[in-house]
Amino acid sequence: MEKKDYKDMDLSAYFIGPKGENADLFKELTEKLINEHVGYRQNFNSDDENSISESEKITPEFNNAVVNMKETLSELSRKMRGGSIPWTTAGRYLAQMDNETLMPAILAYNFAILWNGNGVAWAGSPASTLMEEEVGQDLAKLNGYKKNGWGYVATDGSIANVSALWMARNVASIPFAVKEVCPELVEGKSEWELQNMSVKECLDLLDKTGDKKNDVKSRSARSGQNLQKLGKWLVPSTMHYSWQKALDITGVGEDNLIVLPVDDHYRVDTDKLESIIQENVDKHIPILGVVAVVGSTEEGAVDHVDKFLKIRDKFRKQGVDFVVHVDAAYGGYGRTVYIDENGEFMPYDQLEDAFKKYGIFTENNQFLKKDVYNAYKAIGETDSVTIDPHKMGYVPYDAGGLAIADTRMKDTLTYYAPYAFQEGVAVPASIGQFTLEGSKAAGSAAAVWTVNRMIPLNISGYGRLVARTLFAARRFADLFDGQKFEVKGKTIVSHVVYEPDYNMIDWVYKEEGNNSLKSMNDLTQALFEYTSSSKGGDLYNLDLLTSDSNFSPETYGDAPVKFIESLGIDGSEYHTEGKMEILRASMMSPWIYDDKSFDYWAPRITKAIQGKFELISEHENIL
Amino acid sequence: MEKKDYKDMDLSAYFIGPKGENADLFKELTEKLINEHVGYRQNFNSDDENSISESEKITPEFNNAVVNMKETLSELSRKMRGGSIPWTTAGRYLAQMDNETLMPAILAYNFAILWNGNGVAWAGSPASTLMEEEVGQDLAKLNGYKKNGWGYVATDGSIANVSALWMARNVASIPFAVKEVCPELVEGKSEWELQNMSVKECLDLLDKTGDKKNDVKSRSARSGQNLQKLGKWLVPSTMHYSWQKALDITGVGEDNLIVLPVDDHYRVDTDKLESIIQENVDKHIPILGVVAVVGSTEEGAVDHVDKFLKIRDKFRKQGVDFVVHVDAAYGGYGRTVYIDENGEFMPYDQLEDAFKKYGIFTENNQFLKKDVYNAYKAIGETDSVTIDPHKMGYVPYDAGGLAIADTRMKDTLTYYAPYAFQEGVAVPASIGQFTLEGSKAAGSAAAVWTVNRMIPLNISGYGRLVARTLFAARRFADLFDGQKFEVKGKTIVSHVVYEPDYNMIDWVYKEEGNNSLKSMNDLTQALFEYTSSSKGGDLYNLDLLTSDSNFSPETYGDAPVKFIESLGIDGSEYHTEGKMEILRASMMSPWIYDDKSFDYWAPRITKAIQGKFELISEHENIL
Repeated sequence: MEKKDYKDMDLSAYFIGPKGENADLFKELTEKLINEHVGYRQNFNSDDENSISESEKITPEFNNAVVNMKETLSELSRKMRGGSIPWTTAGRYLAQMDNETLMPAILAYNFAILWNGNGVAWAGSPASTLMEEEVGQDLAKLNGYKKNGWGYVATDGSIANVSALWMARNVASIPFAVKEVCPELVEGKSEWELQNMSVKECLDLLDKTGDKKNDVKSRSARSGQNLQKLGKWLVPSTMHYSWQKALDITGVGEDNLIVLPVDDHYRVDTDKLESIIQENVDKHIPILGVVAVVGSTEEGAVDHVDKFLKIRDKFRKQGVDFVVHVDAAYGGYGRTVYIDENGEFMPYDQLEDAFKKYGIFTENNQFLKKDVYNAYKAIGETDSVTIDPHKMGYVPYDAGGLAIADTRMKDTLTYYAPYAFQEGVAVPASIGQFTLEGSKAAGSAAAVWTVNRMIPLNISGYGRLVARTLFAARRFADLFDGQKFEVKGKTIVSHVVYEPDYNMIDWVYKEEGNNSLKSMNDLTQALFEYTSSSKGGDLYNLDLLTSDSNFSPETYGDAPVKFIESLGIDGSEYHTEGKMEILRASMMSPWIYDDKSFDYWAPRITKAIQGKFELISEHENIL
Repeated sequence: MEKKDYKDMDLSAYFIGPKGENADLFKELTEKLINEHVGYRQNFNSDDENSISESEKITPEFNNAVVNMKETLSELSRKMRGGSIPWTTAGRYLAQMDNETLMPAILAYNFAILWNGNGVAWAGSPASTLMEEEVGQDLAKLNGYKKNGWGYVATDGSIANVSALWMARNVASIPFAVKEVCPELVEGKSEWELQNMSVKECLDLLDKTGDKKNDVKSRSARSGQNLQKLGKWLVPSTMHYSWQKALDITGVGEDNLIVLPVDDHYRVDTDKLESIIQENVDKHIPILGVVAVVGSTEEGAVDHVDKFLKIRDKFRKQGVDFVVHVDAAYGGYGRTVYIDENGEFMPYDQLEDAFKKYGIFTENNQFLKKDVYNAYKAIGETDSVTIDPHKMGYVPYDAGGLAIADTRMKDTLTYYAPYAFQEGVAVPASIGQFTLEGSKAAGSAAAVWTVNRMIPLNISGYGRLVARTLFAARRFADLFDGQKFEVKGKTIVSHVVYEPDYNMIDWVYKEEGNNSLKSMNDLTQALFEYTSSSKGGDLYNLDLLTSDSNFSPETYGDAPVKFIESLGIDGSEYHTEGKMEILRASMMSPWIYDDKSFDYWAPRITKAIQGKFELISEHENIL
């Protein structure tokens, strides 16, 4: 192929397949890559003699070791077969944000393991270090960060979140450090002014310190000083638990956590966000930063990033500033749907044509919500983003990601320069200087690099893949909303909790005519138990797997009340019961979105649910 | 095999081999494991139809995608071949702590990637979660932590170090939190007494808080309070740079870092350690903890862990207490040499017999230093250890490790209980609650589990493997100490900087009769440049690779002066030059230790060095 026309490539070729449909191709490519690696070993100083002779290979000691290895690997295989989650099924795993991963990512990762590069520094893995730099640029650009952006492949979203707060903390502390080391640069500024400089202002200030830069850094938050002056960190109640960890480990402290209430769509209530900030400002308490979640862990909800930024603009006018970080660990790849092949975020009114051109379904296109579009669009104006290739990038674990809008943010984590020189050429300096991780498996960078080169981060590549799942979520949400089951004369109806923003569905089961929240919770939880190893028995024998969660007043406030009342249940029961139990499915499977596959899977899933309710009716005292 | 007799197993079977000697076996086992995985996919609800049909596979779109995948993988292969470090060579890579990794570890890791388990929680990867628990116990026991120990497979040593400080910080803050929430439990205790409780006392105190435990935790260091009351963190000057990171991120702060001077053997000067602690105590400044390094990054030096503990015992008598953490990321596996098949640390006087029994070389056995033995023995009495399977465990990246003596330490990082119940059985709770990492590739736990089951962490398994490298270091140190090269009438002599404690050698090159440190530095650095891509050209065409470092007064104080003077150089030049340049080699290769292989490699390495000096003489103006 001369020019690659990505839209004419069948994404189905990129997976081993739920039934191993492409297993032969996978084996062929695996063997090819192994051979290429072995050839490298053999021909490095090709005349060097072998270290293991043929005669050694036929000794009893060698054979003992081979037997030991085979036996241990058999045991491993047995354990993995018995103790893995069958998320490679096309249609029977409606649960966590996991599915089969991209074949080229697996091949690249496995290949990289043979080389065992340590991507911590160019000298430990020249190839993967450069790949990671490219991938970092990919992630930055995907999020709309232009030429000053930077990114890296983090172990996971938790570490990316922790690192984002670490950077925000160190950046925000620069004005205090400058005041100590080069007071003339901040002369006349009040403490409040020092606390309310933007990321850019802080970094420009650091740049002005010239040869005192490292002295300033040593007086930044890394010294342990001023941590309690930096202000509050605001995170939605839908947050991942890594935010608690982040506040703990960084010493910013959970005392500085403010949890933002969400609306009945599980997005941050931006009026309340504004009033919470205002209350703090009124008390002269600074805001270190605000987190928007794009693709919340339990709901897939997409916060109004655009409104967050508008609120920041408003506060800037009164001299108040703070970081905006986006936790898009799960939802980040959703942005690819809106990006054209030139890397531009498309105007809303061109989407429908673009979708037609790229074969993305347009009928019943309710998943194209304007507010979700606006949120994605606004990400480019934020300061940093967590985005995990090992979630919607369909790359194996571990491959999280962090992107920052201004590459200088990372330099506050180290005394060293961002580039080193090797062979007279600038190469990325030890990435370990800018990350919590020291050693780094080359595999994760190699895997993400490979798939990014094959499947562009725009509508022609990942956009088409993500769209499959958005469409699947749309269709199954429609199926589940109002679906009825008859069991021993009783009618059970399922209800979808909210319109999906992304590819996740939350839903509940309620007995018709029984308006008790407790009953609904019991029934929903029972279905979960019978669709998991809890009561469903061996994982491998299940014909449907789901995951569950529950929304409690402690975490979610009154967010679920409107939904509960819409079912005819008294809203006050939410508080007396203390929770609403839900089923939760990330519709990540790329195999259930089109007419043919939906028509195949919908009745099978329905039948499986019907069977569970019959079992529940038989064994549990709740139906 | 009924009873496995590990000592009769040939370790050479466990590697693909420097020349791919066991590549056929590797391919056979790879294919077997892939088939077993594909069989699982096919037979999960075996009657479900394929998602990719044979007719789809012959469409142009499918073919386009296959071509795209093959082309991209070819590019990946080209980049990896051109940009990897040839550390799989048996004898020509004398540099970083990297070598080929164990075949079963590669197989297990690659296999696990197919299942893509997320070891964050039992529900994401039942098999690997249980494996990680076993491996954690392995690491704890290897370090002499008995039944209360705990460990996990961290991303790497940096994260393990950060986590150790995080735990130490949170544990040390418990007394202050208790004073706030349950003051009656610490009634009458002074601030100094609260600052000087042992780990056990802190954790016992937390246990006494009963149902207020989470309230106490919320007032611990995780709140952001009291961080600056916890005291100083003492780390040897040979420390890995992750310790700066650890002080930065945890908010303990670099202001609380005290760098411990080392002696001319690059081990902490324990007299100075004692006096530094005493000086702080005299000023009423508490000590949060002291780090001992076992296998330092640049020297492989082993600190006197036993003396650290004796010093702690002395201070305990005056009411002063602190954590002792061991950074054995690199050196930790050295302990396996001293552990018998029952898991007991062997008495010193039984070692020689044991070594004979297990085929470990005993002639010229200078590597059996009593002080190194004592240091390893004492680790069991410390509080926590960093130990990386991806270094001397010969497991691919990422597989670092942390072990703690008292499992309750980890519970200070979370509000949650350590165990959950699934199917009525206690299973490990979400490990993500206790670690910086959230998502976790099942592969690293699976790989370490597999090799630990095959190659016991005692003298019958890893002990024999580590011993190969200790012996190689011994032999090459002897070769390099005093080795002479003649170039254009000049004689160059190499000198080993110190007697190795472990498997690392540091050495320099000096022109005979030229007693200038600058000349020695220039010559040593030139040899590095010609044995690396810096001036050696393409990595793949090098016949010898080394790594370098330098010791500067800023970091190392006067540690190198005695050695410099022993070469006839004026010691003051160390300060005027500002550094001593060294070559540095981890002798991790398992293929160069015995008579036959040493006799094969020694002349080849010597010839390569001779060739480099000829090039240097020709091209550089320093000979």
